[in-house]
Amino acid sequence: MEGKNFLRCLFFICSVVLIMLFTAFNFPTPLSDKSELLECATNSAWCTAKNRILRHPHRAPLGHDHTADVPHHPLDPLTIQEMNKVQKVIKSFFGKSVYSVHSLVLEDPEKQVVLKWQKGDPLPPRKASVIARAAGKNYLLTVDVESGEVVEHDTSHISGFPLVTLEDMQNVIFAPLSNAHFNRTILERGVDLNDVACLPFSPGWFGKAEDGRRLVKLECFTMKDTANFYMRPIEGIIVITDLDTSEVVEIIDKGKHIPIPKAAGTDYRLSAENGPVIKLPNPISMEQPNGPNFVVEDEHLVKWANWEFHLRPDPRAGVMISRARVRDPETGELRNVMYQGFSSELFVPYMDPEEAWYFKTYMDAGEYGFGLQALSLDPLNDCPRNAKFMDAIFAASDGTPYVRSNMVCIFERYAGDAAWRHTESPITGKLILEARPKVSLVVRMVASLANYDYIVDWEFHADGLIHVKVSLTGIVIVKGTSYVNMNQVKENEDIYGTLLADNIIGVVHDHYINFYLDMDIDGLDNSFVNVHLQREYTHGTSPRKSYMKVNKTVAKTEKEAQIKLKLYDPSEFHVINPNKKTKVGNPVGYKVVPAGTAASLLDPEDPPQKRSAFTNNQIWVTRYNKSEQWSGGLFAYQSHGEDTIQVWSDRDRPIENKDIVLWYTLGFHHVPCQEDFPIMPTVSSGFDLKPVNFFERNPVLRIAPYVENELPVCKAAASA
Amino acid sequence: MEGKNFLRCLFFICSVVLIMLFTAFNFPTPLSDKSELLECATNSAWCTAKNRILRHPHRAPLGHDHTADVPHHPLDPLTIQEMNKVQKVIKSFFGKSVYSVHSLVLEDPEKQVVLKWQKGDPLPPRKASVIARAAGKNYLLTVDVESGEVVEHDTSHISGFPLVTLEDMQNVIFAPLSNAHFNRTILERGVDLNDVACLPFSPGWFGKAEDGRRLVKLECFTMKDTANFYMRPIEGIIVITDLDTSEVVEIIDKGKHIPIPKAAGTDYRLSAENGPVIKLPNPISMEQPNGPNFVVEDEHLVKWANWEFHLRPDPRAGVMISRARVRDPETGELRNVMYQGFSSELFVPYMDPEEAWYFKTYMDAGEYGFGLQALSLDPLNDCPRNAKFMDAIFAASDGTPYVRSNMVCIFERYAGDAAWRHTESPITGKLILEARPKVSLVVRMVASLANYDYIVDWEFHADGLIHVKVSLTGIVIVKGTSYVNMNQVKENEDIYGTLLADNIIGVVHDHYINFYLDMDIDGLDNSFVNVHLQREYTHGTSPRKSYMKVNKTVAKTEKEAQIKLKLYDPSEFHVINPNKKTKVGNPVGYKVVPAGTAASLLDPEDPPQKRSAFTNNQIWVTRYNKSEQWSGGLFAYQSHGEDTIQVWSDRDRPIENKDIVLWYTLGFHHVPCQEDFPIMPTVSSGFDLKPVNFFERNPVLRIAPYVENELPVCKAAASA
Repeated sequence: MEGKNFLRCLFFICSVVLIMLFTAFNFPTPLSDKSELLECATNSAWCTAKNRILRHPHRAPLGHDHTADVPHHPLDPLTIQEMNKVQKVIKSFFGKSVYSVHSLVLEDPEKQVVLKWQKGDPLPPRKASVIARAAGKNYLLTVDVESGEVVEHDTSHISGFPLVTLEDMQNVIFAPLSNAHFNRTILERGVDLNDVACLPFSPGWFGKAEDGRRLVKLECFTMKDTANFYMRPIEGIIVITDLDTSEVVEIIDKGKHIPIPKAAGTDYRLSAENGPVIKLPNPISMEQPNGPNFVVEDEHLVKWANWEFHLRPDPRAGVMISRARVRDPETGELRNVMYQGFSSELFVPYMDPEEAWYFKTYMDAGEYGFGLQALSLDPLNDCPRNAKFMDAIFAASDGTPYVRSNMVCIFERYAGDAAWRHTESPITGKLILEARPKVSLVVRMVASLANYDYIVDWEFHADGLIHVKVSLTGIVIVKGTSYVNMNQVKENEDIYGTLLADNIIGVVHDHYINFYLDMDIDGLDNSFVNVHLQREYTHGTSPRKSYMKVNKTVAKTEKEAQIKLKLYDPSEFHVINPNKKTKVGNPVGYKVVPAGTAASLLDPEDPPQKRSAFTNNQIWVTRYNKSEQWSGGLFAYQSHGEDTIQVWSDRDRPIENKDIVLWYTLGFHHVPCQEDFPIMPTVSSGFDLKPVNFFERNPVLRIAPYVENELPVCKAAASA
Repeated sequence: MEGKNFLRCLFFICSVVLIMLFTAFNFPTPLSDKSELLECATNSAWCTAKNRILRHPHRAPLGHDHTADVPHHPLDPLTIQEMNKVQKVIKSFFGKSVYSVHSLVLEDPEKQVVLKWQKGDPLPPRKASVIARAAGKNYLLTVDVESGEVVEHDTSHISGFPLVTLEDMQNVIFAPLSNAHFNRTILERGVDLNDVACLPFSPGWFGKAEDGRRLVKLECFTMKDTANFYMRPIEGIIVITDLDTSEVVEIIDKGKHIPIPKAAGTDYRLSAENGPVIKLPNPISMEQPNGPNFVVEDEHLVKWANWEFHLRPDPRAGVMISRARVRDPETGELRNVMYQGFSSELFVPYMDPEEAWYFKTYMDAGEYGFGLQALSLDPLNDCPRNAKFMDAIFAASDGTPYVRSNMVCIFERYAGDAAWRHTESPITGKLILEARPKVSLVVRMVASLANYDYIVDWEFHADGLIHVKVSLTGIVIVKGTSYVNMNQVKENEDIYGTLLADNIIGVVHDHYINFYLDMDIDGLDNSFVNVHLQREYTHGTSPRKSYMKVNKTVAKTEKEAQIKLKLYDPSEFHVINPNKKTKVGNPVGYKVVPAGTAASLLDPEDPPQKRSAFTNNQIWVTRYNKSEQWSGGLFAYQSHGEDTIQVWSDRDRPIENKDIVLWYTLGFHHVPCQEDFPIMPTVSSGFDLKPVNFFERNPVLRIAPYVENELPVCKAAASA
């Protein structure tokens, strides 16, 4: 009996230990005050106690305390400690001048240095790239983190301003309410001043009016009775304000006859729903009870299946993927595919030439920061349950670092599709049915540019394919109108959009997202090949009149690689390494596979089109140049368009067998429809980077099929 | 104590009953001999004991015994009993003539009859549509199942032949081996006759040579040392054979100098792999332990979320979706979207004009039967674990019904994406993060056309969108060559493809899949609207030079709806109901959203292009006509191209406010690459049918977010 008691005791102890271990691993660690304070910049105007930690019912626990983070890789983003050092340097650099920091990020070491670096080597000198403004001047500085040495780069030849900071916006959004005329006109429209919310929109650049001073155009809404104030515009009032002084420069007040749309039916929040919630009774979920198959080494190095890449959040680009390499299943070698890839610029022109709308031609990355606007993700609804999250460390406008938690999620996806399959026809007498499941790895962020939400996915497939997908959702920005029915609109009248609801027009617009893709296929020196498909006649040598022939042309210079896609004059577009061939003699390469593309219809000389000239072509290839990262220009805000990819490419540098960068633009025309009201179902499009004679043969030939007894064992939800 | 015993006894009895019920409902019923025999036609030549039931390690249990099936819905496919009746009628119709049945399917009742029918009503008379051949003549018959009445339709004006049956193919594949010349030339190439496999390929139609007799071109391979004989072509030998007599008509024997490619590295089967299998250590799975949220009522009526549609397998089209209706969340009304949708025809032209290749211009639905070639699915690797399966009942060439089990799968998909989401910017001070998971319903079949596999998905989204996706995988058909390295190919020599491995060329080709989409938006009478986006100049009335203006044009006649897509002259394409408007006065509609489209580059007068003239445009709209279903013609095999959608559309019938059919063609150019060897990673493309002002507002506004405690509870695999 003593033995039995001992066993009981042992069992009890083991159970307790197991429960404790389970608790320790599965429950969020209590927040340290420090990480809580760092959640947003405590010294920032917008960082009130209320939004310091954006708490949400489904919110995952915050990541770890980043105060002690150290860099492990030459491309690791600046740590809090490093940013603090840089902040001190900047402070002393500007002395007693008032200054604002618009960007404080790692300055990447030279490519050659990064390529040579191996784990265990000391890191190359850590440097910060700082964009700041002081005394009405843009500064581009390189700060050596250790030595504190500052190098100032001359940018006087580039027009425009750095992106607006969150603090810029916070400072200016109440400016209209300090103006008597504004308040009077608001009251005249029957709106309580307490209900007014004004949002700062970039003014674009159309000539003299936007020269010399940093401006913002505020558009105002009433928040009364809805969280979705975007649907309640106070139409026609634009408050032009100086961003540096918060001074109201001009008020345009045109839409007095336009009623403010009703609040009813505009709120999209679960808590605001009056009707019954729609819920599929039986839950469906992506499950991975043993955990993921990827690791994130040293905070930023992602390793999954045959892929390895460096991942870091960036305030301007959103996420940056660097040194993407894929392991060759034949040789075991880790092969270079892409040195760096990120969303470089966006362009969202609205198609309404009227005074309150013509300027809406946003460049979301350069004007607002695509990453700055990427907020914390909802762990169960933005990403599946098996996702892991990555925090970002960004700098407030005084240079103070803060943590944007859960900005990026990483997850494996299985969506029920096959990586490849074949059944042999019964007539051959062979009984063959081979199919393999497709599992991929997704890196996701969501940027919320005021009303719109952009979901950006980098999806890595085991067969070497990289799929980049952009999904649009969120809220369509609308225009107030006196119309409540299309039968009130005159025959030839253009309302520039669709009547979405009473007094609400969804204005036609485009979305373009330009991607920087520094492909380095098995090395730096690559070529761009136009694999042209064209009709060839047989001239009586065959019963066939015609066939499609492939003609390959290597682009010698940049202008030859300014590509407009043509459905009836098609090509494939390959980036190859002319110095490396497969066993049978094909140059190794990757191709960009466009899909769902739109082309800008604006006049090439229209100022917005000149500024976002990256939409002049769908594909560009430029000579690698460390300073050419932002296709709409370094200082996109109020830029004139003289620092764009069009200008760089028109230099027509040689690109054959050189270090080259591929640029691809995804496009969407959006004619809103009523289904987009009051919040828009997700619309997606994407493109592929696909191996083409990169591998000797199908690289996923040997992946195993699923078998029943290796899959998870699941039961109904705990609450069921 | 007696009470306690009684309770114990009751508990025991209840448990036993529950276990029995559970077993009865969850375990496959034992196979009756009958259903096993019916798995393929026992009287069919290809139905040997070996392939009677294609047993596979992962094979799901067969569905239920279909011998007692009865129809419940006017569109339900013919049952085994009905087919047996029809078979008797056909037998007596042809009397002593030798005949073959090429199609035996339900003849749909008139549309108006189906629309009026409600559950509980008696079914309209059941009729069969039979395509048969006897004494060298095509027959198109309507057979009344009950009365046995036969109506013969005149098809003498249409060229071509019905699709080849599996029995046709089986009868002819050994014909070459009965020819002494063939055997001699095979032996001369060092191939053992026992290793030879010949496959029957449709000859197309190029003029006199293909007139008057039903031909097939056999191409042969050696099966030695590989299951992937497609990679071992005996190049240049084409055996032209009469399909009706199995007589060898002509042997083309050209490629004697071309070696047969090696077997090494060609086998793709798991069992043939020498190297280690690649397996992600931690399984990932789509889990739904409470079962699916859809029901399949009466065998064919699928109900899921707000969708309801009729689903049936079809030997020519694959699957047919009928009466697709969506419930309006505002009114609760079930609204008509699409009366019928299916893949109507395929076109796969190879781009090699040489003698053994020029004719390869396949029309897979009309020549082979896209559904006939859709074999049983692998339950864990073709479809996710939560899938349910549907069997097909098809007819053998003598009219005998057989069961194609697990031909279609139906499953709900959650891939980790959001149906919609929005985070409010922190500058507004509002703490909003709302995101909703996207769950969809997929109907899938896979047709294996000899070497190639086409995965066709109809995906229904809760927001009213239908996404049609076609994925290509399987084996690229290759050409033997003497080359083993590209450096052997002369400067200007065209090898019509890519050298994939030693002695193997992957020949350039296209894939087109044309979809019949009988949209009936809230009723029969619809219009097709070209929503044209065009550049408009402001002529100095705005700081903007230009904007994009929407111009809507209703197509009056069919020719106005022959649409070639243009990137720089874009349109949206709406099918609207001009008789029904939303509250704010927009006509209700759906739009077709093209993606990943390719256009045929063949000369319009080239015979293959005339036969597959559906690829002349990406979009067509025709007046509804019950007999115009197959865009490449009713008798596509060796057709001359006078019964195509081009011909129907050129009649230019009025289509404004009429019952109209939309046709959309998905296209792929395929320049093979080494990654496609020896089996091709899946490549997908698709298009959307998307509600546009169909709903008053976002129809998925009220769907619930995921919450942790409602999701499944999973643990590691049983075998882990």
